Amino acid sequence: MRIDLNSDLGESFGAYTMGHDELVIPSVTSVNVACGFHGGDPTVIQQTVEMAVKHNVAVGAHPGFPDLLGFGRRNIVMDAKDVYSMMIYQIGAVRAFTDLFNIPLQHVKPHGALNNMAAVDADLAMAIAKSIRDYDKDLILLAVAGTELAKAGEKVGLPVAQEVFADRNYEPNGTLRPRKYSDALIRDPEESFRRVLRMVQDHVIEAIDGTLVPVQPDSVCLHGDGPTAVKLAETLRRELTAHGVEVRSLASDVGAN
Amino acid sequence: MRIDLNSDLGESFGAYTMGHDELVIPSVTSVNVACGFHGGDPTVIQQTVEMAVKHNVAVGAHPGFPDLLGFGRRNIVMDAKDVYSMMIYQIGAVRAFTDLFNIPLQHVKPHGALNNMAAVDADLAMAIAKSIRDYDKDLILLAVAGTELAKAGEKVGLPVAQEVFADRNYEPNGTLRPRKYSDALIRDPEESFRRVLRMVQDHVIEAIDGTLVPVQPDSVCLHGDGPTAVKLAETLRRELTAHGVEVRSLASDVGAN
Amino acid sequence: MRIDLNSDLGESFGAYTMGHDELVIPSVTSVNVACGFHGGDPTVIQQTVEMAVKHNVAVGAHPGFPDLLGFGRRNIVMDAKDVYSMMIYQIGAVRAFTDLFNIPLQHVKPHGALNNMAAVDADLAMAIAKSIRDYDKDLILLAVAGTELAKAGEKVGLPVAQEVFADRNYEPNGTLRPRKYSDALIRDPEESFRRVLRMVQDHVIEAIDGTLVPVQPDSVCLHGDGPTAVKLAETLRRELTAHGVEVRSLASDVGAN
Amino acid sequence: MRIDLNSDLGESFGAYTMGHDELVIPSVTSVNVACGFHGGDPTVIQQTVEMAVKHNVAVGAHPGFPDLLGFGRRNIVMDAKDVYSMMIYQIGAVRAFTDLFNIPLQHVKPHGALNNMAAVDADLAMAIAKSIRDYDKDLILLAVAGTELAKAGEKVGLPVAQEVFADRNYEPNGTLRPRKYSDALIRDPEESFRRVLRMVQDHVIEAIDGTLVPVQPDSVCLHGDGPTAVKLAETLRRELTAHGVEVRSLASDVGAN
Repeated sequence: MRIDLNSDLGESFGAYTMGHDELVIPSVTSVNVACGFHGGDPTVIQQTVEMAVKHNVAVGAHPGFPDLLGFGRRNIVMDAKDVYSMMIYQIGAVRAFTDLFNIPLQHVKPHGALNNMAAVDADLAMAIAKSIRDYDKDLILLAVAGTELAKAGEKVGLPVAQEVFADRNYEPNGTLRPRKYSDALIRDPEESFRRVLRMVQDHVIEAIDGTLVPVQPDSVCLHGDGPTAVKLAETLRRELTAHGVEVRSLASDVGAN
Repeated sequence: MRIDLNSDLGESFGAYTMGHDELVIPSVTSVNVACGFHGGDPTVIQQTVEMAVKHNVAVGAHPGFPDLLGFGRRNIVMDAKDVYSMMIYQIGAVRAFTDLFNIPLQHVKPHGALNNMAAVDADLAMAIAKSIRDYDKDLILLAVAGTELAKAGEKVGLPVAQEVFADRNYEPNGTLRPRKYSDALIRDPEESFRRVLRMVQDHVIEAIDGTLVPVQPDSVCLHGDGPTAVKLAETLRRELTAHGVEVRSLASDVGAN
Repeated sequence: MRIDLNSDLGESFGAYTMGHDELVIPSVTSVNVACGFHGGDPTVIQQTVEMAVKHNVAVGAHPGFPDLLGFGRRNIVMDAKDVYSMMIYQIGAVRAFTDLFNIPLQHVKPHGALNNMAAVDADLAMAIAKSIRDYDKDLILLAVAGTELAKAGEKVGLPVAQEVFADRNYEPNGTLRPRKYSDALIRDPEESFRRVLRMVQDHVIEAIDGTLVPVQPDSVCLHGDGPTAVKLAETLRRELTAHGVEVRSLASDVGAN
Repeated sequence: MRIDLNSDLGESFGAYTMGHDELVIPSVTSVNVACGFHGGDPTVIQQTVEMAVKHNVAVGAHPGFPDLLGFGRRNIVMDAKDVYSMMIYQIGAVRAFTDLFNIPLQHVKPHGALNNMAAVDADLAMAIAKSIRDYDKDLILLAVAGTELAKAGEKVGLPVAQEVFADRNYEPNGTLRPRKYSDALIRDPEESFRRVLRMVQDHVIEAIDGTLVPVQPDSVCLHGDGPTAVKLAETLRRELTAHGVEVRSLASDVGAN
C-alpha cells in the first residue's frame, strides 16, 4: 500500500505572497509548481524547486490559463492549438528549473479552470494530453479519475496518476460534492485521514449517500492555504505512515496497472 | 572563411504582427526567438521554431525584460537574482519547443535594453552569463565583441560568438555609432556587404573616421523589419556565398579559438 | 434621415500596430476607443482621442476583457461584480483623455467577446448596463438591436443606440449570418451602401432569405482593418451623403423615440 | 495646527492580498489608491474607494510604473510623453470610482520607483506635474518637500502638499536616511509621534546629527503593512489629537501659503 500526497505551491507573485509553502512542503511528497501564467514568477519557481530539492519532494508543472487577475480560476475559451502551445511553454519553463537543479520533472497537473474544463471537455483534454505526450511521453499526467482529461491521457499513452481529495465529499457518481453545499468540505483532519485510508486500503470512496465508489488512488491533493491545510497535511502524513501506508512520490509504474 | 547571419524573429503577439519573419528566414542561418516577455507568445514561438526547422535554420533564445508595452526596449533595474531566474525561465520556455521538434537550442542572445545594459554593467552581465552556464554550459552566448556581456561569458566558460552589424557604422573605439547621428545607419545593401566581407576576410571594421578596428566576427545581425531588411539579408546571403564565404550557423567550435 | 458611422480604433499597443486608424477616421462620425485591456495603451488612447478631436469625430469607450493575448476575443467567465468594476475602470480611463481634450465622452460599446457574451447573457448584460448607468446615466450604450445588452440598457434607463452592420448578411431572425458561411460577408461596397440606405430609409434589413427584418438603425459599424475597410467607409460616407442622409455622430435624442 | 495622515491602500490584486487596509484606514485622513499598474485592480479600487467613503477619508490616486511583477519598485526608463499619458490614464481610472461614489478626487501621489525617480529627475517630474495640471489643475500633488517633483508641481501651478515621514530618520540635508543604515527607521510609535508633533508645532525635523531641518508638513505618510504600521497609525491619530493638532485631510488651501 502506497500513496502520494500532492499540493499546489509556488503561487506567489513578485511582492504578493500566496499560501504557506514552507509549512506544507514537509508533509507532502509531490508539489505542483505554478508556471507563471495564473501565479508564480521565475524567481518564485526557482525558490520553490530549490525548496523541493531540499525536502526531497518530487516536482510537477502546474500550468494554468494566462489570467493572473483571475488566478486561473476563470473559464477561458481558447483554441486547442493555443492550449497545446501554452502547455509546452509552461511545462518547459518549469523543467528549466528542475534541469538547473538536476532533478527530473515528475508530472503535470493542470490548474483551476483549465483542469475543471478539461475534466468535461474532451477536445480540450486531448489538446492537453497530446501536448504533454509530444513534449515528453514519460511525464505523468495527474488527473481526477473518470474525467475526460484522465481518459485523454490514457488514450495518448501517457502514464496517468489518479488524484483524490482528502477534504471533499463525493457524489454517488464519483464527482466532487459541489462547494455550494454545506457538506462539500470535510473539516476534521482525522475524518479525512480515515477516508483516505479506506481509499488506499479498500479502493473505495464512501459517497455522501453511503454509496461505495471504486477508486485506484495514486495521489491525494492537499491545499496549501491556511492553518487547517497544514494540520491536515501533517495528520495525513503521520497517520498514513503509522498505519502502514507508504507515503511516497508517484512511482514510475503509475498507470502501468 | 565562414559567417553566421542572425535575425530576431517570433516577436508577434496574439493578434499583433511584428516583422516579416517568413521573408527574412530564407536568408539567415540562425534565428533569435522572442520568449514571451518583451514579445512572442507560446503559439508564435511554436510557429517560429517550426519555420526554423523547415528552413534548416539554427534556433536561439532571445530573452528580454518583462515589458511587452515597451517591447523590451526600456531599461529596467532588476535584482541580479531576478535576472538570473528570468533568464532560466525564458530559455527553458523556448527550449521546450526545440525539444518538441527534436532540434538543439544553439544559442542565447539577450534582447534590447537587457542586451544594452549588460553590455556596460558587469554585474548584470555576470548574472546573465551564469544563468546560461548553469542551465547548459554548451549554449553559445551571442554577444557584441568587447562588451561586459562577452567578457562575462568568457569568464564563466561559455562559448561566446562575436556579433557584428552590417547596417551600422562604428566609432573608432569599436562601439556602434549612436542612432542620433545621421550617419549611424548604412542604407546601401552593397555597401553593407562590402563591409561584412572585410570583417570576415581581413578581421577589421573600418570606423567612421577610417580607424581599423580589429574584429573576429562569428555572426552578423540582420533586423527583421521592413523591405530594406529583406533586401539586405538577401544581398548578404548571395554575395557572401558568391565571394567564397561559407554562410552557416554558429559552429560548435565557437569561442574555442 | 440620419445615421452615425462608427469604427473601432486605438487598438495598437506599444510597438505593435493594429488597423489603419488614420485612413478610416476621415469617413466615420464616431470612434470606439480601446481602453487598454484587450488592446490600446495610455499613449495610444491619447493619440486616438487627439486624432478624433482633429477630425471632429465623437469618442466612445470600447472596453473589453482583460486579455491582450486573445485581443478580447475569447470568452472569459467573470463575476458580475468584477465586470461592473472593470467597466467603470475602462470607461474612466478613456474619459480622462476626453476630459483632457475638453470633449464629451459620447458612448460606450463593449468589445469582442464581452459584447458577444452580453448579447445573449442577461446577467452579464445587466452588469454592463448598470455600470454605465451608475457611472454616467447620459452615456449612450451602443448595442446591436434585439440583444440582451440592448434590452438591459433600456431597462436601466440608458439611451441605447442601435448598431447595424454594412458588410454582413443577416438571418431572418435579425441575427448576423455566422462567419462560417461563405455568404456571411458582403464584399461589394456599393452593395453595402444600398443595404444601409434601405435600413435608413425604409427601416428594414433584407435577410439572406429575403425576409424583411424591421430595424431602427442609429449607427453603422465599420471595421478598421484592411484596404477594403477604408474603401467601404469612404463609399458609405460619400454615397449616403449624396443620397440625402445626414451622416453625423449619435444625437442626444438617441433612445428617446 | 493641523496635519493629514496618508497611507497607500488598495494594492491587493485578484486573489493576492497586500496590506491591512481595513485596520489602517480608521486612523488616516487620506488614502492613496493604487491604480492597477503596480498593484490594485478594478474590483479592489472600487472596494477601497467604498471603504474610504464609509470612513469619511479623502481619496487620492497613487499611479505607478506598469510593473506588477516588481510592484512598481523598479526603476523603468520611460519617455516623458508615455509617462504623461500613463498618469492621465491611471488618475482617470481612479477618478471614475470617486465619481461613482460622488466624492472628489483629492490628490495624486506617485508610487515607489516613479516617485523616487521623479524626486531627482526634473524632466520626469515635469511630465508628471504637467499631466496632473492638464487633467485637473485643482488636484493636489502630494510630494516630498524639496524634491524635483515638488518643485515641478509648484512651477506648473499645482497646489503641492508637503509629505513627511513619521518612521524615518532624516539626513542633515533633509533627505531620508537610506534604509541600508540600521538607524534609518524609527520603530517606537511614541518617538514617531514626538517627532511629528515637533514638525507640526515647530516646523522642524531633527536630523540624525541634531541639525534642525525646516519643514512645512501637510501630510504624514504611514505604511499599511504589518501590525507595527497599525500601531503607529493609531498612536499618531490619538496623540496628535490629544495634543491639540487637528488631524484632517488636505485642505483646499494647500500650497496657497
